[in-house]
Amino acid sequence: MSLAEQALAGALSIADLRRIARRRLPRAVFEFIDGGAEDELTLAGNRRAFERRRIVRRVLIDVSEPSMRTSLLGAPAAAPFVIAPMGSCALAWPEADLAIARAACAAGIPYTLSTMSTTSIERMAKAVQGRLWFQLYVLREQASTDKLVERAAAAGYEALAVTVDLQAGGKRERDLRNGISLPPKMSARHVLDGMLHPSWALQMLRAGLPQFENVRGLLGDEGAGPTIAARVGQNLNPAWNWDDLARLRDRWPRKLLVKGVEHPDDARRMVSMGVDALWVSNHGGRQLDGAIASADALPRIADAVGGKAEILVDSGVRRGIDALKARALGAGAVAIGRAALFGAAAGGEAGARRAIEILTGELALAMKLSGTPDIDSVGRALLDGEPTQGGD
Amino acid sequence: MSLAEQALAGALSIADLRRIARRRLPRAVFEFIDGGAEDELTLAGNRRAFERRRIVRRVLIDVSEPSMRTSLLGAPAAAPFVIAPMGSCALAWPEADLAIARAACAAGIPYTLSTMSTTSIERMAKAVQGRLWFQLYVLREQASTDKLVERAAAAGYEALAVTVDLQAGGKRERDLRNGISLPPKMSARHVLDGMLHPSWALQMLRAGLPQFENVRGLLGDEGAGPTIAARVGQNLNPAWNWDDLARLRDRWPRKLLVKGVEHPDDARRMVSMGVDALWVSNHGGRQLDGAIASADALPRIADAVGGKAEILVDSGVRRGIDALKARALGAGAVAIGRAALFGAAAGGEAGARRAIEILTGELALAMKLSGTPDIDSVGRALLDGEPTQGGD
Amino acid sequence: MSLAEQALAGALSIADLRRIARRRLPRAVFEFIDGGAEDELTLAGNRRAFERRRIVRRVLIDVSEPSMRTSLLGAPAAAPFVIAPMGSCALAWPEADLAIARAACAAGIPYTLSTMSTTSIERMAKAVQGRLWFQLYVLREQASTDKLVERAAAAGYEALAVTVDLQAGGKRERDLRNGISLPPKMSARHVLDGMLHPSWALQMLRAGLPQFENVRGLLGDEGAGPTIAARVGQNLNPAWNWDDLARLRDRWPRKLLVKGVEHPDDARRMVSMGVDALWVSNHGGRQLDGAIASADALPRIADAVGGKAEILVDSGVRRGIDALKARALGAGAVAIGRAALFGAAAGGEAGARRAIEILTGELALAMKLSGTPDIDSVGRALLDGEPTQGGD
Amino acid sequence: MSLAEQALAGALSIADLRRIARRRLPRAVFEFIDGGAEDELTLAGNRRAFERRRIVRRVLIDVSEPSMRTSLLGAPAAAPFVIAPMGSCALAWPEADLAIARAACAAGIPYTLSTMSTTSIERMAKAVQGRLWFQLYVLREQASTDKLVERAAAAGYEALAVTVDLQAGGKRERDLRNGISLPPKMSARHVLDGMLHPSWALQMLRAGLPQFENVRGLLGDEGAGPTIAARVGQNLNPAWNWDDLARLRDRWPRKLLVKGVEHPDDARRMVSMGVDALWVSNHGGRQLDGAIASADALPRIADAVGGKAEILVDSGVRRGIDALKARALGAGAVAIGRAALFGAAAGGEAGARRAIEILTGELALAMKLSGTPDIDSVGRALLDGEPTQGGD
Repeated sequence: MSLAEQALAGALSIADLRRIARRRLPRAVFEFIDGGAEDELTLAGNRRAFERRRIVRRVLIDVSEPSMRTSLLGAPAAAPFVIAPMGSCALAWPEADLAIARAACAAGIPYTLSTMSTTSIERMAKAVQGRLWFQLYVLREQASTDKLVERAAAAGYEALAVTVDLQAGGKRERDLRNGISLPPKMSARHVLDGMLHPSWALQMLRAGLPQFENVRGLLGDEGAGPTIAARVGQNLNPAWNWDDLARLRDRWPRKLLVKGVEHPDDARRMVSMGVDALWVSNHGGRQLDGAIASADALPRIADAVGGKAEILVDSGVRRGIDALKARALGAGAVAIGRAALFGAAAGGEAGARRAIEILTGELALAMKLSGTPDIDSVGRALLDGEPTQGGD
Repeated sequence: MSLAEQALAGALSIADLRRIARRRLPRAVFEFIDGGAEDELTLAGNRRAFERRRIVRRVLIDVSEPSMRTSLLGAPAAAPFVIAPMGSCALAWPEADLAIARAACAAGIPYTLSTMSTTSIERMAKAVQGRLWFQLYVLREQASTDKLVERAAAAGYEALAVTVDLQAGGKRERDLRNGISLPPKMSARHVLDGMLHPSWALQMLRAGLPQFENVRGLLGDEGAGPTIAARVGQNLNPAWNWDDLARLRDRWPRKLLVKGVEHPDDARRMVSMGVDALWVSNHGGRQLDGAIASADALPRIADAVGGKAEILVDSGVRRGIDALKARALGAGAVAIGRAALFGAAAGGEAGARRAIEILTGELALAMKLSGTPDIDSVGRALLDGEPTQGGD
Repeated sequence: MSLAEQALAGALSIADLRRIARRRLPRAVFEFIDGGAEDELTLAGNRRAFERRRIVRRVLIDVSEPSMRTSLLGAPAAAPFVIAPMGSCALAWPEADLAIARAACAAGIPYTLSTMSTTSIERMAKAVQGRLWFQLYVLREQASTDKLVERAAAAGYEALAVTVDLQAGGKRERDLRNGISLPPKMSARHVLDGMLHPSWALQMLRAGLPQFENVRGLLGDEGAGPTIAARVGQNLNPAWNWDDLARLRDRWPRKLLVKGVEHPDDARRMVSMGVDALWVSNHGGRQLDGAIASADALPRIADAVGGKAEILVDSGVRRGIDALKARALGAGAVAIGRAALFGAAAGGEAGARRAIEILTGELALAMKLSGTPDIDSVGRALLDGEPTQGGD
Repeated sequence: MSLAEQALAGALSIADLRRIARRRLPRAVFEFIDGGAEDELTLAGNRRAFERRRIVRRVLIDVSEPSMRTSLLGAPAAAPFVIAPMGSCALAWPEADLAIARAACAAGIPYTLSTMSTTSIERMAKAVQGRLWFQLYVLREQASTDKLVERAAAAGYEALAVTVDLQAGGKRERDLRNGISLPPKMSARHVLDGMLHPSWALQMLRAGLPQFENVRGLLGDEGAGPTIAARVGQNLNPAWNWDDLARLRDRWPRKLLVKGVEHPDDARRMVSMGVDALWVSNHGGRQLDGAIASADALPRIADAVGGKAEILVDSGVRRGIDALKARALGAGAVAIGRAALFGAAAGGEAGARRAIEILTGELALAMKLSGTPDIDSVGRALLDGEPTQGGD
């Protein structure tokens, strides 16, 4: 085993993978992945909302073969996990998008390609045989957005997840201080930082500068925006609304998800419009600092929807047991972003596989120890003190 | 750009401006601005009361042009912000009052001149064309108080905000230890501290010692009081009461605000007396250490008033999103004190502009990200778990 | 002014006096005063219970002459403070009992002499002209206890406060580690510690070793017990019960207080037996670690008693505003122990005066700032969120 | 007294014994005992759940001879304590099982031998005359399990406690990093660690490598599993269920306990099946990280059972007062694991005696100070704010 392989094998938790990634990556890149908006109150709140929930275990149930197989969007998944869309991943590892997607495919869970990925829609579809979803950012030019949707349809993506919580780029102060951008604009400080992380720098030199491959030529100003978030935000359409969603619903014939939902009334309205799945998210604490934690918003969304649509949740998942708690709170699956990217940053595809392996291993263990033979049988009563009848 | 301009431009948050101010100012001056009373429990509680409130975002609303224009005291304001009255500002920057007022004027928000300002009522009125309010401390001599009111009326101030929470000076232990006073009494320690902050010291030497310009000759004992707060407190009338407020209401023909309200019953009585606006405040945690946080008192005041008067709130505002939360809790605007003064201490008028720019920028972003196209449409339901029907 | 006088004058708070005392005293003595039982959970909880309560201020009330005069046990007190009984005080300052009693007398508040004081009942009565109460520990020998009661009666003490929460000495681990005892048994470590605190050591040498003056010859074994608390506990009667209290009530013709009450049912029963005042206390967190905070027990005791007896409270008072909160919660006065002793340890009688001056000054200020012209008019509504109707 | 005896005598609390153990043991061994699963959230929660509960003391009750004698499983115990089963104890001290059992016997409390003990069922029964219970892990081979039960019956164990919360080994990351196993597999790091702890290393060399004496030859693969927990988990039967429990109930004629219960519905069902006692436990935070604290699960179990079975509780007990709180919450006794083993690690049998002595001494004191003359009279009303009528 190489030293890198040994490090991956020795990583016991997502926190371990994060530590390896922190050592390997220049600070600007690590903080771009790890950080949140403003005072990072929502970032911290997301984690706390999972941690403070406690399980009341059941015993004397045969858990010799706990099944975490489930159905997501009408098709089987080997575990209640989905890869969340992430842009700019190639800053962490060359072709990190492909690395993570291959790991997801191998693990039998869906992968969501970001509009702001550094791998094109078509390349991903050719390279990976697994379940692929496409995350759509609504660009200011309607024609550009339409083209993205058409490309995703043509490339065979089974689902479209339209993101509705990036009406503008979040105020990520760490990125503003670090001056991170894509394509990278190298200051003396960045060069120095790169020299201090030679394995990363060599990879970058060999691989060439990553680009937003799906939106080449579509962004208004190639160089604009002090941060990646700001540049993305400037190119998105903040006027996009319920009517536009209705049109998208009509245009896209396959499964449609809306990502970034928090309010029960919004959820109800989406369901009535034929949205297939709601993705409860606050963008990992990277957008509105002050947004409610995902795990707190989730049960009210579930109560509002009453089973008429599927529910995903992200933001704050770091342990396999979080997936069990999320299922108890009403989600069909949890989406993992940073967890997978820490893995890829620590060791490419092998690292991404390790991340998924850690989480599914922890979930399997949590199922055994909580008396859960089948992930589809989990109900809210598994959690201590969670109101079992809600509404909002 | 000069180094100072670069520092201002690099300030991303009010916390950054505070850091610049801390470096620039002698410790005694910085702590006079930054500190609170006794154990600073209320100071910390103010901030926590804003931070712990979480927003449940709405999506799919056109937020391409979020409007933060609003009406305050029957006249338009470009944003739901007001500059809170602050005394002794010239300790932080020469003519800081004017610097902040000009910045407020440029930003289209009202400015409140303190009775204890280092700029006179008349000079301010001549120098600045924007909306000006006058904050009234009730002096022990009724005639002196009357004269202040007459001067404010003659100078055209559109509103009078009478402060009712300084029955005595708060016990600000940092000031007592630092021995801060106005006009400054220079000890060896102060001289040394000044030498360690040469840019500040040079400014002070050039500008001359600041004075309480509005009350020259009115304070009982020019040298009394171990701290600024104590000296102010000794010169105010602790017997001033409801009858006096009624008389003031009769004498002052324009808008009348009462600043320092916390109790719903007090609020109701003021409304019944024709007070135009209630200013919920605990003086930034500088008076009664143990007072309820402003953001906790606010919704009960709003419930008690039921729309029959306008409401302002201060104490603890450090981020633009706090204004959104305050609106949701029932305030028409938030007043900012330290935030603006940190800006002025960091760079005079440019610094004050930067402070307002940061807060309005953050508010605009928070409005977009929370689905709030119009600040006047915000209701309590925006906040997680806030009781929507109250009373007290 | 001497250096010591300057230090006292510079002390702004009880925390400052505590710091001076910590510097002056050998560690074993300081920790004996400052510490609590076991993990000091109750010690910390006492303080937190005061700090977390918040006041909703009233305004526009004439507070030019706030009156903190009140009635305690049917006689006037200049302020709602009482000195709590403390044993072994002479370890901190020679004749600290007298120093504190004189300071209390000067301030017009009652002083409670401990059974375990280092000044005799008679000497105190002759030396001090103020209101004197005697705190009674029930010794194992009934005759010894009777004798104490008779001596207190003969010496003219106006009230007897029988302590009921020292069925055994608390497990004060700091004392066990430090090996503190009375009369002091000097180990090499103690001698070294004394040499490192020469002003204290010189005082002790001059004054001679302090003794438990009230119980000379009454304690079973002069040298027993690894700590002061243990030795005291071993000599008290853990069988003392309701019947004994009834007999004491019959024997003592003046005011009778019971100190160490926490449970509403106990309080009701005492009232029905003719006890004049209940003293809510957990012995400053020095006895049962895990006992409810005094400020949490207080309102339920007040509800149970319904005005049929007076109520005192101690444990955790460090600021003047705590007395205001305690009044709002139903107490007639707060008893201060460590606060006064920190003062005496810092500077004898002058230090004790300074402690009382700080607390009464802070209370007067808190009354002004909360709109409280008269301490006797304070009700529970002054506090945020405190249930105004209780019971238990 | 030897130095070791002095250290034991100087240990005032379980925390002190833990400190001695930490110094004496190699890090891998200490952390195996001290640590919990994953992020140790449940480990910390267990302690906090005891600490945050507060007692409302009663006074004026004769507590001169507090009786902590009670009945457990129909036979007398000198105190409401039981030794919890612990495997691999000989890593801490040679024959630690016997040391702890002898200490328990001397103290008049039951001892529970672990299936994974390093002392055989028969040897323990011969060596110790006290009350012995046997803790049963259900092995994958039914015949092996049956044999264990038969051996326990033949050896005269009065009760069988079947553990139901180890469906798999918990994810104890400290152990995974330290590479602890039984029998020990010595890496260079372990040898070095041993050399740094010579008194421990010498003991081990003299005593020989400890083995799982009860399951010699029964474990599937002598070398399997990266940690002790993993190896144990791999050899247990995760399919063991309610039917199996019913069969065990039929086969075992004496008292049957189920250890690891948290859910009230599980508790009710066990009671209906004739289980004699429920042992509320989350395995000391070593299994499911995210499980509810034992002291939080306890009162609901008590409400569900309604007195139809006895209840034990473990996980988080570190002070004698915890036993009083556990009694108030509905348990008949608390089981102590780490507390006793820290004692044994600090000084063998004398250390284990010291641990029990500390806890019973603290409990006696807590009983006196809370007005509890008889442990059997404790009710839930002793605790502040604990709902006295429950259910689940």
